[in-house]
Amino acid sequence: VKTITNTPRVVIVGAGFGGLAAARALRGKPVDVLIIDRHNYHTFLPLLYEVATAGLEPDDIAQPVRAIVRGARNVRFRMAEARGVDLEARCVMTDTGALPYDYLVLSPGSVTNFFGLASVEERALSMKDLRDATAVRNHVLRNFERASIEQDARERDRLMTMVVVGGGPTGVELAGALAELKRHVLPHDYPDLDISRARVILLEALDSVLVSMPPRLQRKATEQLRALGVEVRFSAAVAEVTDAGVTMKDGSGIDAATVVWVAGVRGEALGAALGVGTERGGRVRVTASLQLAGRTEVYVIGDLAHAEAGDGTPYPMVAPAAMQQAEVAAANILRDLRGEVPQTFRYKDRGTMATVGRRMAVAHVFGLQFTGLVAWVLWLTLHLIQLVGLRNRAIVLVNWIWNYFRYDRANRLVTDVGGGRSEIGGGER
Amino acid sequence: VKTITNTPRVVIVGAGFGGLAAARALRGKPVDVLIIDRHNYHTFLPLLYEVATAGLEPDDIAQPVRAIVRGARNVRFRMAEARGVDLEARCVMTDTGALPYDYLVLSPGSVTNFFGLASVEERALSMKDLRDATAVRNHVLRNFERASIEQDARERDRLMTMVVVGGGPTGVELAGALAELKRHVLPHDYPDLDISRARVILLEALDSVLVSMPPRLQRKATEQLRALGVEVRFSAAVAEVTDAGVTMKDGSGIDAATVVWVAGVRGEALGAALGVGTERGGRVRVTASLQLAGRTEVYVIGDLAHAEAGDGTPYPMVAPAAMQQAEVAAANILRDLRGEVPQTFRYKDRGTMATVGRRMAVAHVFGLQFTGLVAWVLWLTLHLIQLVGLRNRAIVLVNWIWNYFRYDRANRLVTDVGGGRSEIGGGER
Repeated sequence: VKTITNTPRVVIVGAGFGGLAAARALRGKPVDVLIIDRHNYHTFLPLLYEVATAGLEPDDIAQPVRAIVRGARNVRFRMAEARGVDLEARCVMTDTGALPYDYLVLSPGSVTNFFGLASVEERALSMKDLRDATAVRNHVLRNFERASIEQDARERDRLMTMVVVGGGPTGVELAGALAELKRHVLPHDYPDLDISRARVILLEALDSVLVSMPPRLQRKATEQLRALGVEVRFSAAVAEVTDAGVTMKDGSGIDAATVVWVAGVRGEALGAALGVGTERGGRVRVTASLQLAGRTEVYVIGDLAHAEAGDGTPYPMVAPAAMQQAEVAAANILRDLRGEVPQTFRYKDRGTMATVGRRMAVAHVFGLQFTGLVAWVLWLTLHLIQLVGLRNRAIVLVNWIWNYFRYDRANRLVTDVGGGRSEIGGGER
Repeated sequence: VKTITNTPRVVIVGAGFGGLAAARALRGKPVDVLIIDRHNYHTFLPLLYEVATAGLEPDDIAQPVRAIVRGARNVRFRMAEARGVDLEARCVMTDTGALPYDYLVLSPGSVTNFFGLASVEERALSMKDLRDATAVRNHVLRNFERASIEQDARERDRLMTMVVVGGGPTGVELAGALAELKRHVLPHDYPDLDISRARVILLEALDSVLVSMPPRLQRKATEQLRALGVEVRFSAAVAEVTDAGVTMKDGSGIDAATVVWVAGVRGEALGAALGVGTERGGRVRVTASLQLAGRTEVYVIGDLAHAEAGDGTPYPMVAPAAMQQAEVAAANILRDLRGEVPQTFRYKDRGTMATVGRRMAVAHVFGLQFTGLVAWVLWLTLHLIQLVGLRNRAIVLVNWIWNYFRYDRANRLVTDVGGGRSEIGGGER
């Protein structure tokens, strides 16, 4: 079916923020682009916590890749899982066969970092894709169903206790949303349960949430979380997740039926499979122009790329870095085709933001600090704009308006009937 | 947690159209109502085919039961699967324990009827709940992904062939929607595939679709389906589903990777578990007042109930019959409490309708026949009104408007990555 041409073939691994930005930058250019991803859709990860807390539907934050690349004549998609790269033969090895490339852009993203804690990997829930988020939603709601018929008071409390490990943006947003679920939705759903006994606990090993933000915003976010009823604990390092809950390094324990681990990410396993060694966090070292040393046709971008800023530190594992790197990688491919030298990547940090709850957020953008309502409106607006697809935007907006005025989180379906495990963590992985 | 009262306890099994209508009729009355269902949500089954064909999101057509019964102080919900009834002890046996009742309303609905064809049950997809519909969506889209990289022309054609077995409303609507997916969406998604080779085949064992409708509308629906490109075959009885496709009773075969079986339903297994014997289609015989003979505290309504019309035929297995029976069952419970004799059920057939595609439908309501645009608008309006939940209505409307003007079916996510089987039918069941 494929036409054989002499046009250089660019294979992009991963349809995340980086992969799609690279494809966009190569659209209409004299290259044949093939994006591959194990999913047939792009996931808007910043809103994953909304799916996990029944505020949005899984499909709202995902968009089929084929729908995204429709208009681009030189961009194709294949649903395939990359398992390795034959750097010598210039082929990506996938579950659907080997795909030859002239240029390769690797942006497979990251996976949850369990820091070698086997009990956590086995028993905790994580938050890296739609399946994870749906599993959190199913697990939390199922535990309240169980609590509603549990006779033992202690076990009932355990079923209603939710621990979020990790005070980064995902941890803060998830804990805040769980607290709102507890405040506004669950008391109406379970009139026979004393929901005031439900707990949302945010554990952070360091002494602050949102460490990449200015101290004032860190304090503000902590205040906002506590105002919502989240128990925020600092210097709280998890040693183990057990059948009963969480055991801390200091020996203390928390009985909890839900433990969500968002304490860190590491580069996707494809990085290690390259055989060129990895840096801290499983990331692959690249040159200042984002290429593999000695393999200038291979670019690594996004969470998997270990590119160093001037001061020797790697860039943060965030979507804007991946998108900016995608543009440089795409530009360098086109420069190479014209015989020009590659340009160097420089990260422009436009800021970060996190939402905590209704009219509560913190934002640090273009050097300015915002809190409360302003930060919240800023957050909503920017996320709505960045969401891929007009239909998704419209539906997310309908949901947000509904949830706001009705104090609701309406997507409270348990969809894995028969699946769920009774303990921590979740059935389908 | 439960308060012990002397108020009579009504247990309703099943949160479908019948169960919810019974709860609504008993709201605010001097009874304690407990609804149980294995799912924590009500599913709007008439729109299941939209989910199966990527036109709507699964969550759009479902509503948490707890959200539905929120306002009713005397109505409770429990997520539990009924496995049997101890008629002597007046207890429903569930996976969460025994639930005592003073009055019981059984409306567990129906399951797919495979008519004893083991190969069909094993290999075909069905369409009875959200999981089924999602499995159809995943399966169809995955097969097009496979077709896009398949080298063998015959296998490629097989992957693009979709067979729907059964010409009732679900079969007609599903076949029509698959044909629209083929016409408007897939050619853009798969520019490298010759989508004109994709086939949608509707097999009906009798000599007409929509047998419960007037002959003119049957013919019209067939015309509409054929205009959309559906191959409609009558007197086509399936003998077997194989790894390659479908084998007919006359020995001929159709190579097809997707076979959806919507040829019939039978009463839920709970009916047989009652131990009072079942009629044709696994239904439980009830008196004219919808009670079990000799067990006047037990009502059976909806698809599971075999109640006979004046002419000795059972009522059709449709939502309006279930809802009308629910009202009579609820009224009879209240009459019994007041020492009055039960009333007799009489079915008011207000008509049926089926949509085929864009501006194409047939409707037979209040004795009048409609086709084309009028029937289509009628169908859209009635379904939107009947859908439970304002938010769901708003979102379904957004989706419909989008799909209509963009000729799109936007929810094309394959969500069971790792799950899917390569043959007919579908992974997760």
